Amino acid sequence: MPRKSDKYSVVGKRQPRLDGPLKATGRSQFTDDVVLPGMLHGKIVRSAIPSGKILNIDTSRAEKLPGVKAVITHKDTDGLMVGADQLLLRDDSVNYFGDEIAAVAAVDEDTAIEAAELITVEYEPMSPLLSVEEAAVEGARVIHNHLDSNQADDVTMNFGDAEKAFAESDHIRVDEYTINPSHSAFSEQHIVLADYSLPDKLTIWTPIQSSVIIQMNMAFKFNLPVSKVRIMNLNTGGAFCGRGSDKAHHYIAALLSRRTGRPVKIRCTADEEFLVFRGGGTYNFKFKTGAKKDGTLKAIGAELLLDCGAYMDAQFIVLRFIGFSLQMLYKLDASNFTGRLVYTNNKPYFFHHGTGMVAMRFALGSQLDLMAQDLGIDPVELRLKNAVDKNFTTPSKIHYASCGLKECIRKASRKSGWKRKHGKLPPYRGIGIGCGVIRSGGKGMMDHDTSAATINIEEDGKVSLFLGIPDMGQGSHTAMAIITAEILGITPDDINVIAGDTDLAPLDMGAMAQRGTFTTGNAVKNASLNTRKQIAKTAAAKLGVKQSSLVFRDKKIYSKDAPDKTITFEDTVYDTLHSQEGRYIMGSGFYNPPVEAVMSGTYEGNTSLAYSFGAQIAEVEVDPETGIVTLLKMTVAHDVGCAINPLAVEGQLDGQVFSGMGQSMYEECLMENGQVLNPSLLDYKLPRSFEMPEVEHIIVETIDPYGPFGAKEVGQGPIQSTTQAIANAVSNAIGYPIKELPITPERVLNALRQKNKK
Amino acid sequence: MPRKSDKYSVVGKRQPRLDGPLKATGRSQFTDDVVLPGMLHGKIVRSAIPSGKILNIDTSRAEKLPGVKAVITHKDTDGLMVGADQLLLRDDSVNYFGDEIAAVAAVDEDTAIEAAELITVEYEPMSPLLSVEEAAVEGARVIHNHLDSNQADDVTMNFGDAEKAFAESDHIRVDEYTINPSHSAFSEQHIVLADYSLPDKLTIWTPIQSSVIIQMNMAFKFNLPVSKVRIMNLNTGGAFCGRGSDKAHHYIAALLSRRTGRPVKIRCTADEEFLVFRGGGTYNFKFKTGAKKDGTLKAIGAELLLDCGAYMDAQFIVLRFIGFSLQMLYKLDASNFTGRLVYTNNKPYFFHHGTGMVAMRFALGSQLDLMAQDLGIDPVELRLKNAVDKNFTTPSKIHYASCGLKECIRKASRKSGWKRKHGKLPPYRGIGIGCGVIRSGGKGMMDHDTSAATINIEEDGKVSLFLGIPDMGQGSHTAMAIITAEILGITPDDINVIAGDTDLAPLDMGAMAQRGTFTTGNAVKNASLNTRKQIAKTAAAKLGVKQSSLVFRDKKIYSKDAPDKTITFEDTVYDTLHSQEGRYIMGSGFYNPPVEAVMSGTYEGNTSLAYSFGAQIAEVEVDPETGIVTLLKMTVAHDVGCAINPLAVEGQLDGQVFSGMGQSMYEECLMENGQVLNPSLLDYKLPRSFEMPEVEHIIVETIDPYGPFGAKEVGQGPIQSTTQAIANAVSNAIGYPIKELPITPERVLNALRQKNKK
Repeated sequence: MPRKSDKYSVVGKRQPRLDGPLKATGRSQFTDDVVLPGMLHGKIVRSAIPSGKILNIDTSRAEKLPGVKAVITHKDTDGLMVGADQLLLRDDSVNYFGDEIAAVAAVDEDTAIEAAELITVEYEPMSPLLSVEEAAVEGARVIHNHLDSNQADDVTMNFGDAEKAFAESDHIRVDEYTINPSHSAFSEQHIVLADYSLPDKLTIWTPIQSSVIIQMNMAFKFNLPVSKVRIMNLNTGGAFCGRGSDKAHHYIAALLSRRTGRPVKIRCTADEEFLVFRGGGTYNFKFKTGAKKDGTLKAIGAELLLDCGAYMDAQFIVLRFIGFSLQMLYKLDASNFTGRLVYTNNKPYFFHHGTGMVAMRFALGSQLDLMAQDLGIDPVELRLKNAVDKNFTTPSKIHYASCGLKECIRKASRKSGWKRKHGKLPPYRGIGIGCGVIRSGGKGMMDHDTSAATINIEEDGKVSLFLGIPDMGQGSHTAMAIITAEILGITPDDINVIAGDTDLAPLDMGAMAQRGTFTTGNAVKNASLNTRKQIAKTAAAKLGVKQSSLVFRDKKIYSKDAPDKTITFEDTVYDTLHSQEGRYIMGSGFYNPPVEAVMSGTYEGNTSLAYSFGAQIAEVEVDPETGIVTLLKMTVAHDVGCAINPLAVEGQLDGQVFSGMGQSMYEECLMENGQVLNPSLLDYKLPRSFEMPEVEHIIVETIDPYGPFGAKEVGQGPIQSTTQAIANAVSNAIGYPIKELPITPERVLNALRQKNKK
Repeated sequence: MPRKSDKYSVVGKRQPRLDGPLKATGRSQFTDDVVLPGMLHGKIVRSAIPSGKILNIDTSRAEKLPGVKAVITHKDTDGLMVGADQLLLRDDSVNYFGDEIAAVAAVDEDTAIEAAELITVEYEPMSPLLSVEEAAVEGARVIHNHLDSNQADDVTMNFGDAEKAFAESDHIRVDEYTINPSHSAFSEQHIVLADYSLPDKLTIWTPIQSSVIIQMNMAFKFNLPVSKVRIMNLNTGGAFCGRGSDKAHHYIAALLSRRTGRPVKIRCTADEEFLVFRGGGTYNFKFKTGAKKDGTLKAIGAELLLDCGAYMDAQFIVLRFIGFSLQMLYKLDASNFTGRLVYTNNKPYFFHHGTGMVAMRFALGSQLDLMAQDLGIDPVELRLKNAVDKNFTTPSKIHYASCGLKECIRKASRKSGWKRKHGKLPPYRGIGIGCGVIRSGGKGMMDHDTSAATINIEEDGKVSLFLGIPDMGQGSHTAMAIITAEILGITPDDINVIAGDTDLAPLDMGAMAQRGTFTTGNAVKNASLNTRKQIAKTAAAKLGVKQSSLVFRDKKIYSKDAPDKTITFEDTVYDTLHSQEGRYIMGSGFYNPPVEAVMSGTYEGNTSLAYSFGAQIAEVEVDPETGIVTLLKMTVAHDVGCAINPLAVEGQLDGQVFSGMGQSMYEECLMENGQVLNPSLLDYKLPRSFEMPEVEHIIVETIDPYGPFGAKEVGQGPIQSTTQAIANAVSNAIGYPIKELPITPERVLNALRQKNKK
């Protein structure tokens, strides 16, 4: 079948990643590859208990160790806070196993480790609060003195008249769901190299999703102008929401550098990675859904109790995203949400891949299958009946200018053989569906969400494209090169993407909220159009035609009225520079979605210009003896608007199936007394490559009116559907509802026991 | 006296260099500071005789040395040529002491040196040709087989009817002048780091005056697209015409890197620096000047025999510049010039500071004093009588849109007390004048001479200014920051200049031909105006005034009609970004002088839009016993158009007085049998700081109509006047004409002996 993007010469073609050869041959530079003259190595001393008072910190032995250049504790930090509730280094108490207490810088890493071990901390342990239930109870010990209780945040978000909608429902279900803690498990561990040797300039090398946000935060905390903080984000080995912004190690490295006048590198170990850095916390959901007899959904209500861990970081965002998204997928009269974030003495949580949406969609998607069962409606039909459409406006006034949800459901169901299989598979075989929706960027809590791009063209026609967005592995730099190549009628390998240095890059809010292709893509499109105009001037004069009639394609330029008379792109660039005028071609463009920042107000309004939709169908087999689930096949349909690079879209779909199956079936931080019991990639179980199922990709292109070439996102939309589909397939296979993630063999066997008990 | 630039808030103010603190504290990165993973060290094996056949090269012992990764000789170079007449590595003969024969790369520098020493070369020596006289003679051995003689180049350049003009002269003088070889003597020795480990990308770190020219040449020679050659020019420790472009060590490092798959650094030693790298050669001038009785100059003729050394490099430029410049300083009817460049077995020469103009101006300026003496006219009066003026057009059709020559002569003569002193000083005290003219960039041999600049503005109002021009110490980056600051109404320290990397920088032909302030300055001005327009949009809306009425000054923006109502620059930038529109400010601009490239044709026409002029008066004392000359005072007047940064202008004047006194009185490569006898900064005599005279600076501002804020150059114009002034002052002091540079004590004593002989 012809694809909608067939009319383009570069967009929509399968383009291998431009950074592939360098990555594959080990030549890409990551932060750990950077070695500066005089560089020191830092090490952080962390709490060895989950909760307690600090009676004494003795750094004297460490200070005497030859090769140690600095030892810092709380008194050396000027009271610096990381986030609203977290001291950079603890003063008189510790709140979790791994809390930062002191740090050293030494001439090499071994000396730094030895010095850190020579620092002795005397504690008076306190009984830790290790669950939201314990911590939320009236009269529980309050972890943070500046508060009255352990409630870190609470949000109520109501759209429409839920009371009325539930009253009008024929059937209401209430179910509870639990999602256990997980971890981002990057291939590149957390690392920072800081050079703050001069007092008026701080340079930070670190893998990060938004160079601009860490830049702004560090500038604010160190009282520097933003432009005096330079972020070098060379390459990032995975992020998955886990590298949103600044964390304690960034500040500690900077302070050690300031103190020693030398650059300081801190490399986190696998232990630190799991003990300190943040995946998702424990989600306890109570879901309530009301529907008419015919399956028409009326309202969804959800209560969430979320384990915050010891510090909040940006987790308030999770509550809001979830509250917001309840009413985005199906046509409802109303939704209501109450979310509470509760401090515990667990490690501080953050996001995992999916920003809490995986948890919520698992709960809602699972409950919808139960609703379908109750009403005797096929789960696919129930979803199709209620799915949102193009031009639909949700109760919170979100508006869909393009929407491929129904097309995704229909195509996934057809390709997966749903009708043939659902209810007709042999015992312990199951099939399940999941659906999702996510926005393509937008002004979340910021008053702008700008991306910008600049372009220089060399006299040989090669293009330098300057970007502020990092590429953490998703291939966004290649996608941006494709957009420029299409507009200038050249090929992506004519383009050199320059990014990763805030001193050089034009502004970009970063790779988050699925804004890359849509927002940065629009900026790149604008910059490319601005550039094309400059070349068109020469070309039109040379061809003797109007600029408006020019076509740029296949490295040639011609008038659409006389396509036989062509000039090459390269010659035109050369002639522009080598003309009497001597004009050097430089283009620029920016994009900022013209929507309101709604997340901090009433939450009503259109938070983005574009939303993408997806549906996935999982087929599984369960071994009733061992409880082991085998994921046989995933049929994955995603409405990306326009597939700028179908190869990368498929890669993103595969990656999210992989990550989603991890969160569904494998990944769990096993917590005991505030400690992670499985803090390594050996013990923390990720799916292995041979466990990857067959994946059928269905790319749905709805050509969004606001997206560059109609493109939306394939950032973390697809993963929303994966967990639901797998959980529903397992429930379908065993004939008993799964209500807890991950679906480990033990939980499968428990479910089978529960089923047999009934 | 108020200066013409007083109306500006930044331009014309004394601005310390922005890179000063980093340079002064040793934090600036130079090529030798760059250490890459796996980097090797290279060493070049050079000829140990000035001329001969190579019978055998034995590299076997070097190849066996542990740590040696590559050994290359001619057969590994694919016949690569450096310039038209020079093989990268010699095949069957050597042409000078130092000629490149082989090269090694090893794991460290000591091993590389040892390996180079293990390579044995068997020669059959030939009798070297060590002077132009020997080499130019009919029947002399021809050094380069592809030619019929040792004549490397010859140029005849006639403007006006010289025969007629000489016939109409009342008095004609013919004198001969000799200028001996000198050396550029940088503080940073020649160095290169090449990474050619992947076949499709070559990165070169090296100090250079034009990143673009070395990039183009290396791309051409290695058959790579220009954009696949990246030049990193971090900082440059002096250049003085000696780092114009690519030299053999650049290619050798690249080939060694290609061969080993690892980066290779080659650091030249002090010996190599003097034996191989290039200052000026030996100039033999025959000057003929005709004048009327009243001192009106009619014509100047000059014959030049110039020692080329073993290879030509870009010395053909010297001949042309000299031929061209004969008729630029005084109003003449005609000029004629014949120049011959002759190969010898001396080291290949190049330029020294002043590009041959110092030599020519010394000869002409010295002869003018003799003419003045013959006609009984005061030397200052003779120059004033003949000096060119604003709107004058020379016989070669050069046109002066601004001209401060007479103002320079008058002011220098007044400030120096010329009238009081000339002819009235005690014995062995002398006073002398020198004058000069030079162009501010222009299309020399290129069909464009473009500079470009781009600008990003951070939300805190700090500006990133992207430039392609290097700053070799002359302060051009600070000058460019001043231009941007003036236009945007901010201060230079609000500006971060980003340069030194061809992947990032907009095009710039480089720091040569005094084009920086004029050409790059105009590009920066255009980029800044383009940027200001973007900010003006916000400011005008906020103030409710017309954009055209806005004034940007002192970090504020206001309407000239209502100067009390101001908004800050920073707030306006912030508001622009944080508006609903979310606009990020990016500016760009370029400049290419709209003149014809005349150097390769008939040489007629206006080669540049702007020319600067200068006059200097030297006062000296000669010790008749020792011949030692003491330079007591230099009065230095220079027409810079507009002093963008008077502090830097004074620095440039001081620097050129220093360099000019070096060339006049101290610096000489003592050649014997093709070897430099004084190859180190210990033996090659540069002036010492305590020998620096008192310098009186007179900045003349003629506000050129085409220059940015009226600015022209202060690049290497001033040095033209220095040598003449000193030589004339010494002649004046001893009463006998100096006709050879440098004016060593021995030559002074010789002159005194000659005088007494008469």
